[in-house]
Amino acid sequence: MNTDCPLPIATEQTIRLGHGSGGELTQRLLRQFVLPHIDNAWLQQGHDSAALPIGNTQIAFTTDSFVITPLFFPGGDIGELAVFGTVNDLAMSGARPLYLSCSLILEEGLEMDILQQVMASMGRAATATGVQLVTGDTKVVERGKGDGLYINTAGIGLVESLQTITPQAIEVGDAILLSGDIGRHGIAVMAQREGLEFGFPLASDCAPLHQPVQALLNNGIDVHCLRDLTRGGLATAMVELAETAGLEFWISEDHIPISESVQGACELLGLDALYAANEGRFIAFVPAAEVDSALNLLAAHPVSREACVIGRVNAVAPRDRGRVIIENTLGCERLLERLPGEQLPRIC
Amino acid sequence: MNTDCPLPIATEQTIRLGHGSGGELTQRLLRQFVLPHIDNAWLQQGHDSAALPIGNTQIAFTTDSFVITPLFFPGGDIGELAVFGTVNDLAMSGARPLYLSCSLILEEGLEMDILQQVMASMGRAATATGVQLVTGDTKVVERGKGDGLYINTAGIGLVESLQTITPQAIEVGDAILLSGDIGRHGIAVMAQREGLEFGFPLASDCAPLHQPVQALLNNGIDVHCLRDLTRGGLATAMVELAETAGLEFWISEDHIPISESVQGACELLGLDALYAANEGRFIAFVPAAEVDSALNLLAAHPVSREACVIGRVNAVAPRDRGRVIIENTLGCERLLERLPGEQLPRIC
Repeated sequence: MNTDCPLPIATEQTIRLGHGSGGELTQRLLRQFVLPHIDNAWLQQGHDSAALPIGNTQIAFTTDSFVITPLFFPGGDIGELAVFGTVNDLAMSGARPLYLSCSLILEEGLEMDILQQVMASMGRAATATGVQLVTGDTKVVERGKGDGLYINTAGIGLVESLQTITPQAIEVGDAILLSGDIGRHGIAVMAQREGLEFGFPLASDCAPLHQPVQALLNNGIDVHCLRDLTRGGLATAMVELAETAGLEFWISEDHIPISESVQGACELLGLDALYAANEGRFIAFVPAAEVDSALNLLAAHPVSREACVIGRVNAVAPRDRGRVIIENTLGCERLLERLPGEQLPRIC
Repeated sequence: MNTDCPLPIATEQTIRLGHGSGGELTQRLLRQFVLPHIDNAWLQQGHDSAALPIGNTQIAFTTDSFVITPLFFPGGDIGELAVFGTVNDLAMSGARPLYLSCSLILEEGLEMDILQQVMASMGRAATATGVQLVTGDTKVVERGKGDGLYINTAGIGLVESLQTITPQAIEVGDAILLSGDIGRHGIAVMAQREGLEFGFPLASDCAPLHQPVQALLNNGIDVHCLRDLTRGGLATAMVELAETAGLEFWISEDHIPISESVQGACELLGLDALYAANEGRFIAFVPAAEVDSALNLLAAHPVSREACVIGRVNAVAPRDRGRVIIENTLGCERLLERLPGEQLPRIC
């Protein structure tokens, strides 16, 4: 299934699948080969979308290419994913998602029926989230130079809140909230791809997240940072944020909701749900005093009905900054690492 | 070189290379399979970028995926193209290009050296055009599921001018200006791809166009419409604009500059330069009374030094609207058609 070496090698000469994992190899690729040529203050923010001034308006801008295989999976498809994924990246900046672009890279031989289904799905997802697909592009590549259909969406949102929602705004004492159970997208896609059946239902969590986020912001919760969990799972998001914020996070494995289906599948396959991909889950950093209000607001939205506190931001000595400690069910602590290589490629 | 049937078939069941031509097949694909699901007022404008209100600011938003082969060609590379192409689409709305996203789809096995060269080229192109690459994404696909490297850029520009620059703003009596000689990008890429050598220099016209456009707008030229010439060439752009505007255009083949190199290559290969791709040329529709001022302004910029008038917008009966008449060197007139299928795939 995955022949890619999970151990990072320091001097890569060519691209490997793990470079697309969203984990350590992706970070190294960007640091070594991309950022030296195009660095600027916005990229350094290390955020899901860039907050930009334009005229006298503040906007959020983000992009994502979707190369998932298979195109249709339990709980969603590439079209829905391409809309929700970009909507979610905008929401994580506290922006109201407004406009999306849609660029298609089609492989010669793709069936029109498939294109039709995917576009219908994009249309429904756009309507459901209140965004407009306003501009697009279509390219075709020869047979054997694609995988049916790749979609890029870029998105623009309006930043209405005056709060600065960035990793740098996270404070010691903040509570870490998780919006629901983890790992369903990654495990459902893997099961579909490999033709595995577990005897229990498994569906992606693919969903838009802008409504619970807007609920927090509109009701005055002092949200410090938001991050949706995608490639690399909860673990990678936590480590990235701890490093960017320069703080220590402590989380409890006991408090992290994992469905029986995902837990069962992970045990059978020898995977760790902490690293499994999600497409409809996020974490929020809020002051401890606002936890109850925040959880009440999140509980009112189906997508974040089971939101809970999974940890906190610790005051630590400078040498311990940038790390994540996880306490397991036996009360033992260990350091959490980001996904090194690739658990499962082509997940989004 | 190109085994794709050039004749459109009415009931396609699968994607063919011609669907990516930017010509008639692309239009039909969009009409039949894409627009029914995601239509809105912005897509109906049929413009290179969408002009959008956000807060109390007017912005332009556009996207393009670049799948060109080879990645490096005489006069440019995919990185430069990905920046200039999106900058040009923004410029054609009269917007000042400000921010770009950059999404990479990398094929397993791509050499890091190539990625490094392309990113360096993107960085230089961004600096040269004054845009910032503010957000990005990196995906990796397995060997045989890509072609080395695909790049998507989306772009945001600030619309400062109060002029409405759209196909609908074109008026009877307008002069049609062309910014320089045509066909160099398409012919240079074809020559490189096929290993052809002609004994005369051939290089892409790949270049940013925002400066001559800003010069026209800042100096009060009443620009009605702008369009950069890309896939499908001058002919396809003219036909698309005539149809969208619902007007008749008349152009003279004698007045269209074509370099000796391109003319020679076209004669050898049996191609028509009117349909060859460009990446650094545009047409402008301006009132006849402002032609001299416009040409003087364009002449001051190297990229549009040889700008000239190639035709005009005619007053015609309703039944003749939406067509383009071209007068050849013998004084005979014929109707111009858009590129039906595909002259050369993967050109941008």
